[in-house]
Amino acid sequence: MAQEEVALLDYWPSPFGTMARIALAEKGINYIHNFEDLSNKSTLLLGMNPVHQKVPVLVHKGKPVCESDIIIQYIDEIWKNNFPLLPSEPYQRAKARFLVDFIKNKVHESSVKVWMEANEEQENGKKELIEWSKFLEGELGEKLYFGGDVFGFVDIALVPFYNWFIVFKTFANFNIIETECPKLVMWGERCFNRDSVSKSLPTSDQVYQAYLEFKRGWTHGA
Amino acid sequence: MAQEEVALLDYWPSPFGTMARIALAEKGINYIHNFEDLSNKSTLLLGMNPVHQKVPVLVHKGKPVCESDIIIQYIDEIWKNNFPLLPSEPYQRAKARFLVDFIKNKVHESSVKVWMEANEEQENGKKELIEWSKFLEGELGEKLYFGGDVFGFVDIALVPFYNWFIVFKTFANFNIIETECPKLVMWGERCFNRDSVSKSLPTSDQVYQAYLEFKRGWTHGA
Repeated sequence: MAQEEVALLDYWPSPFGTMARIALAEKGINYIHNFEDLSNKSTLLLGMNPVHQKVPVLVHKGKPVCESDIIIQYIDEIWKNNFPLLPSEPYQRAKARFLVDFIKNKVHESSVKVWMEANEEQENGKKELIEWSKFLEGELGEKLYFGGDVFGFVDIALVPFYNWFIVFKTFANFNIIETECPKLVMWGERCFNRDSVSKSLPTSDQVYQAYLEFKRGWTHGA
Repeated sequence: MAQEEVALLDYWPSPFGTMARIALAEKGINYIHNFEDLSNKSTLLLGMNPVHQKVPVLVHKGKPVCESDIIIQYIDEIWKNNFPLLPSEPYQRAKARFLVDFIKNKVHESSVKVWMEANEEQENGKKELIEWSKFLEGELGEKLYFGGDVFGFVDIALVPFYNWFIVFKTFANFNIIETECPKLVMWGERCFNRDSVSKSLPTSDQVYQAYLEFKRGWTHGA
């Protein structure tokens, strides 16, 4: 791998991989895209992320950066003269970090419940997602994006899960966003219209296929 | 509360509260210290951190910053001309963020197992902590602190858990560090010799009292 080369170890339906892709696209960075088979992880992935053995991993100048939120901040700090992803003001930065942490943990956990569980646990996941979405709708308020007029860190973290919510309509008979959160719907449309997002998101079919694969894998593993 | 005033909503035995205290002490910031009764949380805490309802919360100019790692970064960015806590180089920053995330999640989860579980689950927690400590010993290597010659972000995040490990000797008959990780022991002594750390850490007795309280609370809650 050449000294300056950038590579992304990725899995197309992953919301965390999607975040890294959007950040790289916003910065206009060319990179080698390595797709992983999660049932048979490459020695490159296991070597680059021995602790968590997860995608995405950004490899820059031969060195790994792991965890999607850390990857986005790294990209923003390295290519700092391109389109900035984090706000410059410390309080706004702290607030953006808080919301990204909330999305990465709370929104992710409840989404996985809706995906993978059934009956009561799935219903709990739906209730939580409604609560989180209303909270995020409140945080968005009348702004175009979470940071104000400009697309950035929090939008990058949320839009892959928003994309999941659309898939939930099909297989979980769960239409959270249109009924409860009209501002989030308009925000979602605004994000989907960006090239960096539309080219990075998996299609609903790809997400659904990943769901079937995981479900099969998890059942076999249980 | 005056415009420039700094307050910390805290609970003395909390490792996450301890992190915020050390960061404020390193920067030499005066602040109002509000201690919470976790069995009867104040309306101030519930208002300042409605999402997680947890300590620590840093209140600066009347606005809340939540989550210990985000608080430390905020403190570093606001009082940037004092002693820097994060490295300045982007790759080293990403690495420090990765290790802090690892400590906040993996080390914390396994520590809670050793604290609160019994039998097989407690033994699993011990095995995990040995694995994580060996990994951290490797990351420390021959350096004085995790970032090199200077105390910083990763040290602040780890030293409250290192303090727990010492308490584990008493009540869980588990002496991980002396037998397995001699470099971490020397690093721990080095950190304990800093004023910012020694004045911020709870005593072993305080940690043990908190353990008894939680155990009682959790048993009642179950």
